[in-house]
Parts: sequence; C-alpha cells; structure tokens
Amino acid sequence: MIKKFVSGTPFNTEAVTDFYSYENNSLASLPYFNFTTEKDKLILEYRMAENDAVYGLGEANRGINKRGGRYVSFCTDDPSHTEEKVSLYGAHNFIIVRSSKTFGLFIDCPSEVVFDIGYERYDILSISCVSDVAIFLITGNGLYDIARQFRQAIGTSYIPPRWAFGYQQCRWSYMSAAEIRDVVFNHRKHNIPLDAVYMDIDYMDGYKDFTVNDATFPDFTAFVNEMSSMDIHLVPIIDAGVKIEKDYETYEEGVANDYFCKNENGEDFTATVWPGLTHFPDFLNPSAREWFGNKYQFLIDKGIDGFWNDMNEPALFHTPEGILEAHERACALADLDPDPASSEYMDCFYKFKDLSSRLNNRMEDYARIYHNINGQTVNHLKVHNLYGYNMTRAAGEAFERICPDKRLLLFSRSSYIGMHRYGGIWTGDNMSWWSHILLSMKMMPSLNMCGFLYTGSDIGGFGCNCSRQLLLRWLGFGIFTPLMRNHAALGTRVQEVYRFENIHEFKNVIDIRYALLPYLYSEFVKAALKDEMYFRPLAFDYPDDEIANRIEDQLMVGEGLMIAPVYTENTVRRYVYLPEDMLYIRFKGFAQRTCEILKKGDHCIEVGYDEIPVFVKKNHMLLLTKPALSSNALDYYKYTAYVYRDPETSVTYELYNDDGYTSRLSLKDNISPISVDESGKLIAASGYEVEV
Amino acid sequence: MIKKFVSGTPFNTEAVTDFYSYENNSLASLPYFNFTTEKDKLILEYRMAENDAVYGLGEANRGINKRGGRYVSFCTDDPSHTEEKVSLYGAHNFIIVRSSKTFGLFIDCPSEVVFDIGYERYDILSISCVSDVAIFLITGNGLYDIARQFRQAIGTSYIPPRWAFGYQQCRWSYMSAAEIRDVVFNHRKHNIPLDAVYMDIDYMDGYKDFTVNDATFPDFTAFVNEMSSMDIHLVPIIDAGVKIEKDYETYEEGVANDYFCKNENGEDFTATVWPGLTHFPDFLNPSAREWFGNKYQFLIDKGIDGFWNDMNEPALFHTPEGILEAHERACALADLDPDPASSEYMDCFYKFKDLSSRLNNRMEDYARIYHNINGQTVNHLKVHNLYGYNMTRAAGEAFERICPDKRLLLFSRSSYIGMHRYGGIWTGDNMSWWSHILLSMKMMPSLNMCGFLYTGSDIGGFGCNCSRQLLLRWLGFGIFTPLMRNHAALGTRVQEVYRFENIHEFKNVIDIRYALLPYLYSEFVKAALKDEMYFRPLAFDYPDDEIANRIEDQLMVGEGLMIAPVYTENTVRRYVYLPEDMLYIRFKGFAQRTCEILKKGDHCIEVGYDEIPVFVKKNHMLLLTKPALSSNALDYYKYTAYVYRDPETSVTYELYNDDGYTSRLSLKDNISPISVDESGKLIAASGYEVEV
Repeated sequence: MIKKFVSGTPFNTEAVTDFYSYENNSLASLPYFNFTTEKDKLILEYRMAENDAVYGLGEANRGINKRGGRYVSFCTDDPSHTEEKVSLYGAHNFIIVRSSKTFGLFIDCPSEVVFDIGYERYDILSISCVSDVAIFLITGNGLYDIARQFRQAIGTSYIPPRWAFGYQQCRWSYMSAAEIRDVVFNHRKHNIPLDAVYMDIDYMDGYKDFTVNDATFPDFTAFVNEMSSMDIHLVPIIDAGVKIEKDYETYEEGVANDYFCKNENGEDFTATVWPGLTHFPDFLNPSAREWFGNKYQFLIDKGIDGFWNDMNEPALFHTPEGILEAHERACALADLDPDPASSEYMDCFYKFKDLSSRLNNRMEDYARIYHNINGQTVNHLKVHNLYGYNMTRAAGEAFERICPDKRLLLFSRSSYIGMHRYGGIWTGDNMSWWSHILLSMKMMPSLNMCGFLYTGSDIGGFGCNCSRQLLLRWLGFGIFTPLMRNHAALGTRVQEVYRFENIHEFKNVIDIRYALLPYLYSEFVKAALKDEMYFRPLAFDYPDDEIANRIEDQLMVGEGLMIAPVYTENTVRRYVYLPEDMLYIRFKGFAQRTCEILKKGDHCIEVGYDEIPVFVKKNHMLLLTKPALSSNALDYYKYTAYVYRDPETSVTYELYNDDGYTSRLSLKDNISPISVDESGKLIAASGYEVEV
Repeated sequence: MIKKFVSGTPFNTEAVTDFYSYENNSLASLPYFNFTTEKDKLILEYRMAENDAVYGLGEANRGINKRGGRYVSFCTDDPSHTEEKVSLYGAHNFIIVRSSKTFGLFIDCPSEVVFDIGYERYDILSISCVSDVAIFLITGNGLYDIARQFRQAIGTSYIPPRWAFGYQQCRWSYMSAAEIRDVVFNHRKHNIPLDAVYMDIDYMDGYKDFTVNDATFPDFTAFVNEMSSMDIHLVPIIDAGVKIEKDYETYEEGVANDYFCKNENGEDFTATVWPGLTHFPDFLNPSAREWFGNKYQFLIDKGIDGFWNDMNEPALFHTPEGILEAHERACALADLDPDPASSEYMDCFYKFKDLSSRLNNRMEDYARIYHNINGQTVNHLKVHNLYGYNMTRAAGEAFERICPDKRLLLFSRSSYIGMHRYGGIWTGDNMSWWSHILLSMKMMPSLNMCGFLYTGSDIGGFGCNCSRQLLLRWLGFGIFTPLMRNHAALGTRVQEVYRFENIHEFKNVIDIRYALLPYLYSEFVKAALKDEMYFRPLAFDYPDDEIANRIEDQLMVGEGLMIAPVYTENTVRRYVYLPEDMLYIRFKGFAQRTCEILKKGDHCIEVGYDEIPVFVKKNHMLLLTKPALSSNALDYYKYTAYVYRDPETSVTYELYNDDGYTSRLSLKDNISPISVDESGKLIAASGYEVEV
C-alpha cells in the first residue's frame, strides 16, 4: 500500500505518475518517524535497531545496505568516487528500511535531500530536506513487493532496443570516422562481438549539439550506413549546454524563443562548458523541452538510433562571474610585491588559488539560474535534481513523436526518479580501480529499485589507466549489466580489448554475453513490463536468510540466476554463499562449460581470469544461444537449456522475444513457453528449437 | 646467498651495512634479467610466467602480490592513496620474485626507480633506474629465507620501548595541555587502555622545531611528568623544515654552520612549509645530522621519550621561485580584459590556475636542492629518497649518544631501506576509507621484508570522516600492528573511541591488544633480533599451497598466529582459508572467548563488530595476560596459555621479556621457555605463572 504525506506545497516532479490521485495525508500522521521542522527545513528521524538495514538510493556510493553512511541527493559532476563522497550524478530518494517494520519511503523532492543512515549516530536514520515535500510511504509483503509497488507508482521503466544489449565500445574520443572504422575492424578481426561504437564530444563541430564535424566525419549518413551494414550502431553524445555562437541554429532559436535558463537579471544564463560560453536549455519548460527534443531528429535522419545525454547535472566549468571574481583576486595579487614571507601576499595568493580551483559546479552559480516552469520563475536550487531528468525526457518524448514504432537507445549521466521512463543511465565517470567493479555491482540493485533497469558502469574504468586483468574481470561482471560498455577517458591508456595480450581470453568472456543475450533480454523486458527488478540483492530473494541478507558481492539476476564476479586482483578463486541448492555452471568461453549441483551453504569456487561462474536457482531454466559477432547475427530461436529441477517437477521458462526494436511491447504476444515436463521431456513453443 | 652487481659508480646509501665488503660483479653477469642502458638509464627485464608473483616494495600501493601494477620509488607527500597512485611516502626497492627461480632483488638506488610488474605487458617485469647503481641478488631456500638473508644484510631492525606497543591516540592537533588531559581523562574514565598521546605541529611555538608553546603548554616538564605518572607518554612531532626566524637558535646555528641544504647559487635553499619560509637541514651531511640529532635533547630533557619525524620527503608547499613564477602569470592575467570568451584570456587564466595549484612538491624545486655529502655537492634528485631516512638516522644516532641505555620511540613518515635500523614508520596520511584497512594489511608484510617491523597505519583514517563501525573494524586489525595509533586530521570528525556510542565495544577490542601485548612484544623483539618477519603473507609460511599463495586478506603474525580481520562494512562473517588445522579463538572482550579446532580448508566464521578471531598454528602456543589500562600495569609474569598440539607432542614457547626499555637486548638472557610436555603438563620458567 502506498500512502502520500504532504508538508507545505510540494513540487510535482512527475516521478510518481499519478501524483495528484493520492490522498494528501498530513505529515503529522506519518508513522514510524519523528519529524521536526526548522525554518524551511524538515527533519525526519527513525530509530534503527542493531541489525536493521536500509536499501535504495539508486546511484549512490558505498554498499547495497546503506547503513553507516551519509548521502546527499544533489546531482554532481564529480569523477572521483572515493569512499567519502556523498553525491554522485543522480538523485534517487527511494529507500527501503528493513526493520521491525519493513517499509519503503520516497522523498519526492527536487532539491537537496540529506540521508544520514546511522553515520552521525549508529541507531538513527535521519532525513532532511525542504519542508515543501511529498513523501510516499510504501508498505507491503516484504522487500521485493515494496520495490514492485513503488515501481508501479513511478511507471514502466525504459526499454532499449535489443542491440543495446550487445557489447559496446567507447572512448573520449574517437576523433574521426577512420578511427571508428579501425576500432570496428580490430574487433571483427579478432572475432570479438561488437554492436556499437560511441561518438564522444569531438564528433561535433566545435562541440555544438546537433552538428557533425564534416572534416573528420565526411558524408556522415553514408558512414552511419556503412557501420549499420556491419551491425554497428553509432551512438553520439549530446551535451546539455548550447554553444553561444551567432548563426548557430540551436543557439539562435533558443534565444529567440526564450528557451534558455535565465539569470537573476532575466538574461540567458551563461557558463563555460566544452564549447566555451554556453546557454542551458530550460528543460523544465515544456516548450523548450519539446523544441530541444525535436533537435535530435537531425541525427536520427542520418540513421542514428542511439544517444547518450551528458553534462546534464548541469556541469559548469565556470561562469563569467566566477572568472571576474578570480580576476579581481589576480589583480589584487599583481598589485602586491610577490613576497612569500608576507602573510598579506600569501593570503591573497591562496585566495586566488582556492577560488580558481573551485569555480566549477559552484553553488553560487547554480543559485543564479532560473527556470520558467509553467510561467512561474523558479530558482534552480529548488529543482536542481530535475535538470538531467528533463533533458532526457525531452529526447524520450521527442522519439515517441519522431519514430513512434521504434525503440531508440537513450541514456543519461544525471537523473532523478521519473527519468527511468525515458532512458537509462550509466553510472558516470568512474576510475580504473578494482574497487569500482564492486561499487558498480552494489549500485545495480539499488538503481533497479528506483526504476533504472538499463544501466551499467564504464567497463575498465573511465579515468586512470586500465590493466589487462582489471578489464578482463570488469567484463566478467559487465556481461550481466544491460548496458555493457567499455569506456575510457582522454589521456588514459587505450583499453579496447584488442590492445592487450591474449585477446582470446577477452573473447571467451564477451562470447558468454552473446550466448546469454536472448535470455538476459527476455529477463530484462519481463522485469521492466512487470515492474520487477532485474538485479536484486540476495536479501530480496531470501529475506529470512540472515547470511544472504549481508551479502554484497553476489547478485540475483533475472528470475533464475545468481552471479558472483571476481573483483580483486591476482585472484583465481572466490567464496560464494548459496542460499539454496543451485546449479553451478562454469564457463571458459562458450565451448567449455561444466555443470555441478552445489548445496546450500558456503563454497569456494575457482574462477580463472577468463572464466565466468553462473548459478541457476532450483526449478529454473537458463537458455544459451550460440555466440555471434553481433546481436543481429544471433539465433533467437535455437537454444541449449540448462535446467535444475526437483525430481518429477516441471519447469517452464517464459521466453520473451520480439523483433528487437518494436515499441509495441506485449508480454501476452511475445512470450513463448519452453518447458521441461515432470519426466524431463522438453517442450518448446512452436518455432523454437531447444536442447537440454 | 647474496651477490652484488654494479653498474657505473653507485652511491652507498648505507642500506646494506657492509656495502663495500661484497664483491663487485659486473651487471653483465646478472642472471635471469636482460638489461639495456639508454643514456644514464638502466632497464632490467624479466619474463614472468602466468602464475609468477612478485612481493616486496614495502610501503607501496595495491596488493601483497605486486603483479599487474606500476610503482615509482620516489618519496612523495600525497595523502590520497587511490588505486592509481604509484608513489607513496617511502622508497623500498626490495622485491622477491616467485617464479621458476625464486630470488630477491634489491635495487640500491637513492633516486627514482620504476617497477613495472606486468602492467604494460602482463608477462614482463621491468625495472628502470639510473645507470649508477648497485643491485643485490639474493637466492636461497624459499621466500622466507630470502627475506631473512636480505634483512641480515641491511642490519637489525629498530626496536621501540615496550610502551610503544600500547594503544596510542593522536589528532592534528590537540591544541593544549588541557585538551590532552581531557583525552586521557576520557580514556581512563571509560576504562580504555592508553599508553600515549601525540602532540602534532601545534604544540610548537610558531611551528619551530625544538620549541614548545608556553601559552598552551605552560610548565611543560611538569605536564610531561603528570602524564607520565598516569602511564601516558607524550610524543611530539618534529618536522624536517627549520623556520627562518632571526634569533631562533636552530635557524641561527644551521645558517652559521652551513648545515642547511643549498640552492643552485650556494645559498640556503628556501621553501614554505608549516612555519612559513624554512631551510632544510642537510641530513646527508654527517655534521648537520649530528647537530640536528642533538637538538632532540631539548625535549628529552623535559621527559619526552618518543618522537615522530614528519614532512621529510621533504614536503614543500612552494618555493619563492614558484611563487614568483605564479606571480608573473598573475600579472599577465591582470593585464588582460577578463573575457571568458577570449581564448587568449582563458589560456592565461588556466596557466595561472594550473601553476598555482601545483606549486607543492615540484620536481623543478627538488632539482634546485643541493647536498654536501662528504664535501661533494650532490643534486637532491640523485639522493631524494634518502632525506627522510637520514633525518631519522640523525635522531636515532643522537639517542644512542643522549640515552645509550634506553630505547626511545621513533618513527618517520618518509623512509628508505636502512632507516629501519633507526626507527619505524607509519604508513602516512591515509583516509577514513574501508579500503585503507585492507591496503594497510597488505603493506605490513611488504614492509617487514624491507626491515620495517615497527609500523602501522593511522587507525580510523587520517583524512575524511570516520564512522563508528569503520573505527571498530580498523582497530580489529590494528591490535596486531606494532604501532597501534588512532589518528585523525584537522577538520575531520573527532574519532577518539569515546566519541562514539557503545564505548564498551571499543574496550572489548582494545583490551585484546593488551591481553596479547606481552606475547606480541615477545614475537616482535624475537623477529627483529633474528632478522625475521613479524607479519608474513601466507605464501611465505605455506609456499607449496597454491591457495594460500593467493590470499591477501589474512596474515601470519609472529611464529604461531594467523589473523583474518573484517574490512568491509555491515559484515558480521567472513571467509577464512586455513592452510593447516588450527586452533580458532574467538574473542569478545577478554572475558568471553571460545575455542575450536578448525580443519585445514575454507571456513566461514562469524565476527561480531567487537569480536576478534585469532588462529593458532599447530604445536604453537599463545599467551594472554590480563588486560590493564596501560602497558606498564600489565602483569608480564602471569599468563593463560592456549596450546594446540599433536597428541604426545611437547610445545615450547620462548617468551622474550625485559624491562621494556633497556637497549641491551639479548635473546640469550631474556628468553624464558614455557612448555607443555608430551603429557600435557605445563612447565613454566621460574618466576612465571601460567595456566592452560
């Protein structure tokens, strides 16, 4: 059951689809919590017992169980996700508290929300936000049911085209069509499956959205077709900021129609990002949203069918005002004698140094941005967390107009709950750190609770240099994430798989993704359409198992699988806890696979660097197809089935299958049952060929 | 066997005590490696097989097995030990390669050395350094024997007084005697054992070495005595830089006697550190070393018996030359119109900003420092890694003169092999990150190989804010490190144990340290005097066990123990691999302990937040005494023994015991055997009372 509690006049973020249909209960009647208000601030407190756990918060740092940490929902462009960081790119204010009472709580608040989950005091969960807020309390039949109810309330999750489940390669940036051809050539040459190559900011003409550099990408439509003929999709980036440049259409239209965010003087707000000085489309203004969304047609018309939206926290390098402020300090410094023994001089020096090094993403600058929301002028800080959401909504709504019959790939860096209906996310600019494999594992179920099913981390790590083994192990987890993209930053070591030794080991891992692709796609679409979680903590499937409840380095995937990736260096075995008897399949490439039934309990398994362990739950079925070099080349009708069942028990797998891009998704029409009956006989729906 | 290979004219770092007594073999005769020289650069290459491992490098990032990473030996003041960092505070160029041939290699080189251990190519170990270098190749009977031989070559490790094995509390900074009294009072009030409180830089008068602020620490000698009467030792910090201030004795003497490092013009080199403009004692000049060492007497005379040497990489905030360079850019910027749309302006802006933010620890500045080494002028870059070493040697050599009969506590931030004879180290400015518990665990055996036995990390983490559970778990490992110090930085959350809830849980953990203290002290002194390792990877004790060889989150401690700390949040069980049958003791405080014999193999054990698991090897003995509030209050003659033995096998533990401070250490005179005979009867040396 979902109850809505209201304080003041909350902003409708449209995260909850039927926001106004819920009864507005007074906050005073909110159970479990104490609340206090201070000026415009609301503080909720819940007393936690020793073993209470708190799940959720989507793209947040730390564990699956958020207990012990502090988290600030404020979409932030910060690529260094060290353990103390409290804000990442997304703001996902949904938690589930597992306590004497188990309940979900969604703080539907577009401005900053602080969750202190037993950090300041180990036994206190404290949430603070502005006092104009709507809070949704979800009670139900356990963790999974609460998550499902919440997902129903926020609407069906975005479903990408099937090719977006293929392996994808990105780098900031492949500078030309020739470079991209080379990347594709090398994957194909080494028989590494590949479905997409990304175009980072340098494909544009002067970093201007909806332009293509003609010099480096001549005859772009032909290039898109050439790639398409090889089953390669090109995925260009779109940045939030629009370059200020006379005669640049997007700029001129935005200015003419008042589509850009304003500053305190009613002028178009200006800050520097990649293109230099830019304006920022006011995505919270429905007209601006429609206008910006329509712009994607420029690339769709050239054959593009996938996009990633970036820099939409929004990230700001600096504003003219910030530069002016720093300039004044530079002038003050220039006026003084450069005497390191003078405290006056050094104070002045440090003032410049400190200011100049924190001109980016300044609160002072965000505070100077204004939106036009249905005619009302609203300060940005009040709605900061909705910016990336509505940029992606602009695109998603436009796609429904531009190509209503076809799913396009779309995902974003910044997000808020509600955006999950329009696109996925990637987990932002991470690092080539072993710890970031585990961090991304922990984010996955947390994101799923919040509606974000199409997601994954930059495999191999975006910043810093990747090593061969790190990439191999990261892929070993990445083959299970819906978005499976290798991505590295400018200035880092090249990390396409063919850059390393023993390329066949990378093929061994990526092939398993393709063997699993129809199954994972089926699991994903079913999870999305049924408002279920594709990735789940073990705690959700085995709530009464105290051991399973604590496990943070294994995940449930789809309805029948458990995974246990290796995420530490120079390790070839790992411990796995089985909450019930399971079928353990050990892959070393597609050809070499062994099976064993492992009993409930603790096990230590061997996992060579290119091996993949998978665990199938009892009375479930796993389907494998034969790997191919692209998702398009897979056979979606021919499978090898792995079934682990109780004696004389029939097992049916409901395989979802479609043409891979239709936007008319129907569980009813697209499900084909594949069964093993009590006697062990396999019965596949017509058209399917399956062997056990 | 140790063989010395020489290229060019190597500098004698005095890491190896009998440097000149080894035959000088030509590098051409170095086995196993290919070598190439390029200009003044030497590159050694070794081909590694799939499962070869490389141990060593002391205080370095990443794993116990260094395979897969790149490491640069260049002592660096960098507090953010994220996974990509290649240089930390120490430079410890000793590795052991476990391969078809197993051997040790010590690159005795005081300037930068780069180790690429399978990062660039997975199968290549590459070492590069200057071509004037001495290389020691150690072969022997396995890993442990190789480490011991190396230790014999570099001389006996520093042994601190026994009280330095007590629990110690530090913060940057306790600002006054009153604050320190409060810290002591609170530990005593809550019955938390404590042996030392640290005085960080603010105890000094204007950050001047060998001064005490009379306003905040009035009548310092009386205060030291007052603390001493409560069994509390005060440990002041000594920084490398000497403040430039007329009439300040240390400064005046240093200038008058040419004891400071010079710049390229022969003037005293100047840079800014905590006190403002400072000079840097030329610790590589024996006269300057003696002079600076004698200065410690100022504090010893006031009753101080422990010191920590800091900022001795040396850390430089900036030089006047750096400031001047930045100033010129500020002037250039001030001359321009502050136009963020102008690329000329922004280029100029970024030049100034980037320079001003990287003025610290600049290679250009290090290159301008010159040493006087036996009359020769030597550029600092050639000997950079010896600076902290020789600062600590200055103190250590002085202590032998000032108080020849008494051991003082001494440790350093920066170090090079050789310094281990004069003092310990702490592992520098870490962070309140869970990953830093594990990182510090991995450093311990690596440091032991290199001679550094007295060491430990800042428990709870120096930078960032610590949470209750993090501190509790970090202590759970810290109770086994010789240096057990809780330390936090200015501006972070206070993290003395009494600041958190349920203080008794902290007592439960720290009490175990005190119960173990006589035993750990005995193990430590024996390891030091026998050139053995106190902390060892499992690979060293069980070289033929392929599973043990890969384990990086368990350690062997002393001759008979294995530990398996918990280093992840919200976890109350962990997996442990036992390379042989062991006695598992589970502590929850001193009073509650249970015993169980666990078989060789994989186990999952429960470890409550305040519980400590310890594993005793077969036919070994563990001795516990009753905890007390200080090391001085412990009974060193009354023990409970835990023995795990084969039937009808006698077990003897050789307990080392002394008065806790004598510098005349003798295994012969100070060892007392405690035995259990074949029949299980306990026989303790006279004077000892032991129960099983």
